[in-house]
Amino acid sequence: MHHFLLKEKPKEAEIISHQLMLRAGLICQLASGIYNWLPLGVKILNQISGIIRSQLDQAGFEEILMPLTQPAKLWLESGRYDAYGPEMLRFNDRKENAFLFGPTNEEVVTDIFRRYFKSHKSLPLNLYQIQWKFREDIRPRFGVMRGREFLMKDAYSFDLNQDSARATYQKYFATYLKIFQALGLEAIPMQADNGAIGGELSHEFQILADTGESEVFYEEALLEKIKAGIFTYDQLKNYYAATSEKHQPELSKKLKLKSKRGIEVGHIFNFGTKYSQAMKALIADDKGVMIPVNMGSYGIGVSRLVAAIIEASHDDKGIIWPKMVSPYQVIMVNLTPKNQAVNQLAKTLIELLKQAKITFFHDQAPISIGQKLASADLLGFPKQIILGAKDLEQGVITVKDRKTADKQKIKIANLTNLVDLIK
Amino acid sequence: MHHFLLKEKPKEAEIISHQLMLRAGLICQLASGIYNWLPLGVKILNQISGIIRSQLDQAGFEEILMPLTQPAKLWLESGRYDAYGPEMLRFNDRKENAFLFGPTNEEVVTDIFRRYFKSHKSLPLNLYQIQWKFREDIRPRFGVMRGREFLMKDAYSFDLNQDSARATYQKYFATYLKIFQALGLEAIPMQADNGAIGGELSHEFQILADTGESEVFYEEALLEKIKAGIFTYDQLKNYYAATSEKHQPELSKKLKLKSKRGIEVGHIFNFGTKYSQAMKALIADDKGVMIPVNMGSYGIGVSRLVAAIIEASHDDKGIIWPKMVSPYQVIMVNLTPKNQAVNQLAKTLIELLKQAKITFFHDQAPISIGQKLASADLLGFPKQIILGAKDLEQGVITVKDRKTADKQKIKIANLTNLVDLIK
Repeated sequence: MHHFLLKEKPKEAEIISHQLMLRAGLICQLASGIYNWLPLGVKILNQISGIIRSQLDQAGFEEILMPLTQPAKLWLESGRYDAYGPEMLRFNDRKENAFLFGPTNEEVVTDIFRRYFKSHKSLPLNLYQIQWKFREDIRPRFGVMRGREFLMKDAYSFDLNQDSARATYQKYFATYLKIFQALGLEAIPMQADNGAIGGELSHEFQILADTGESEVFYEEALLEKIKAGIFTYDQLKNYYAATSEKHQPELSKKLKLKSKRGIEVGHIFNFGTKYSQAMKALIADDKGVMIPVNMGSYGIGVSRLVAAIIEASHDDKGIIWPKMVSPYQVIMVNLTPKNQAVNQLAKTLIELLKQAKITFFHDQAPISIGQKLASADLLGFPKQIILGAKDLEQGVITVKDRKTADKQKIKIANLTNLVDLIK
Repeated sequence: MHHFLLKEKPKEAEIISHQLMLRAGLICQLASGIYNWLPLGVKILNQISGIIRSQLDQAGFEEILMPLTQPAKLWLESGRYDAYGPEMLRFNDRKENAFLFGPTNEEVVTDIFRRYFKSHKSLPLNLYQIQWKFREDIRPRFGVMRGREFLMKDAYSFDLNQDSARATYQKYFATYLKIFQALGLEAIPMQADNGAIGGELSHEFQILADTGESEVFYEEALLEKIKAGIFTYDQLKNYYAATSEKHQPELSKKLKLKSKRGIEVGHIFNFGTKYSQAMKALIADDKGVMIPVNMGSYGIGVSRLVAAIIEASHDDKGIIWPKMVSPYQVIMVNLTPKNQAVNQLAKTLIELLKQAKITFFHDQAPISIGQKLASADLLGFPKQIILGAKDLEQGVITVKDRKTADKQKIKIANLTNLVDLIK
């Protein structure tokens, strides 16, 4: 594994996640709001995508993949081609057909639906994809938090009627909370119109971070329930949670609301027959009457999540990855790589980690001891195995926990303890 | 799981893989040469990508992800912006900066390299990605075999000198043969300049298919060695293999060459310092002299592979997936879904398959028995479990092998045999 560490603090980065992603070598900028993902960054993207995919598959949602380039004609049908404005990147292809780089996929997925499904018997249907999108932000900033080219999980639901659509919506609500928990995050659903969680079928999901972009207000009991793994809409709908935009200040005192900073990482939304009506995605109901299918869309910003996780989990030394998304569980730092006995020990450890299926980053960069320890903290994998001649004389190795900074000496004679400690 | 089967034979499809991909519901066209990937199609893409990734990771190559949109200025530096012609999709962004939709990534990866690496001590370095590309084919056709938007694995190597570059090249050569074997395919490397496998550092990999696009000539002993798992360049370099373009006809008889049809699925190529010189990607050699880094690029057409696999493995009833890439190992067909006892048996089988971690597609589409059996053959998963009231009376279920069409009756009293048969 090669390091892609930056030595200097990147000047262009205004927020901490952007600084740390550049310094730790997760990304580097290709153009304004457009980033290359370097090896560690890709590992995290793949890890997050895998966790999301696994939860959505378990919920019975079906993965598809829609192209990045979309013909304009579908957007003319829905009426959004003119409405969308300069945030949409438009171009002509070689034959002068109008195209665009997809910022979202309601039109394309509605077109797929109407080509294959004509009966309520095929419903409900849920299709999702994990795919790159492009939005022409007028002022891209904050790294991948507000980039132009970004990775999203977008899902689309198809239901016979509003009742069925509500049940589907609530399934996404619970699945989203499960996903964020599986990612090691605490996410709070916020009703997008007024404070109470119940009500309209539109929620955003915010994760708490001191450096978050917006102020959020919520009842502590709501967060407690979510932490306890209570995800059903019915059990949460009576609690209050809102961003400052929607917050009703008079309720702060009355409900003893907590006020913290948050970052939006997901949004779920039922829009009924908006696109199915315009694009004639009709299904036969149980009486054989053709009616427009009821739809919703459900997004999670995958590349944005990487930044959000770092905003929520870092210290002055660097990133602190939650175990579930960390690209490696362990970094192995050899302080005395010229010592043959220590190198031999390193080899033994590598075999042990491989056998135990613990993923590890073996730092072999030709840098000083101080730089090695600092970069181990910067990279932020949960555990650090530190080897050196001095420890070896005592018959031990040092295992450091990145989050607590606790160090433990493990006897080399008893290395199986190491596996237990790390797993 | 929903079916996305087409009832009629698609008129627009000229070749068998395109027909079968449309009929089996792997893809549907969004625009000329641009395809939506439907649930079964995505599963295969993910499966293939996973196998490729795992082999490349094992070889020590490092995964990155470069954006789809690229600034034109890098291509002006390399000199290819004007040279590339109308196959490159160009556009201006919101601020009138010239951009393009990446058809390949030599410029971007060279730019990454020069920003991070300055010393021969960091070499060799191998970076790869699995990412969508766009090429403005003047006449897109044959489905995803020759599409405009397509998924590729592209890898790039960085070496100090030609000796080291040759060793790297040979590593890709062997890794590619391993990848195709892991995908259940027989791929033959063909020297891109003249027939003998040895020689210039440029090979394409062809898989054999009666319906292949080009004629290929090769020594049977070469294919035998590859089938036997002999992948090293040194052991294969003296054999002859060539496409008709490069073939020397006088050798056909002399070497007793086989002549078959083939489909190109990969290409490896060392181009030395072409881009590093133009873009000043310089490294300090062991004397401290700054020299341009030696590079190569290595591609596998991932979306094209799906079509190529079908061309190589189908019959008049449909697709025959190699076990390794099949989206599901089993399709379960219930001939009498109104029979409660059979439904109960289906449930038992589902539990059994889940426990044994055998992936299965449970066909519950409301179609006739004949359609069910035909669509099971069309979809092409390796095994079919066929349940029905008649079999149940005899205390058996039927397991059909898709490839051989052999049917076996398994006693319900002894269902563990089923797992052995399928695994």
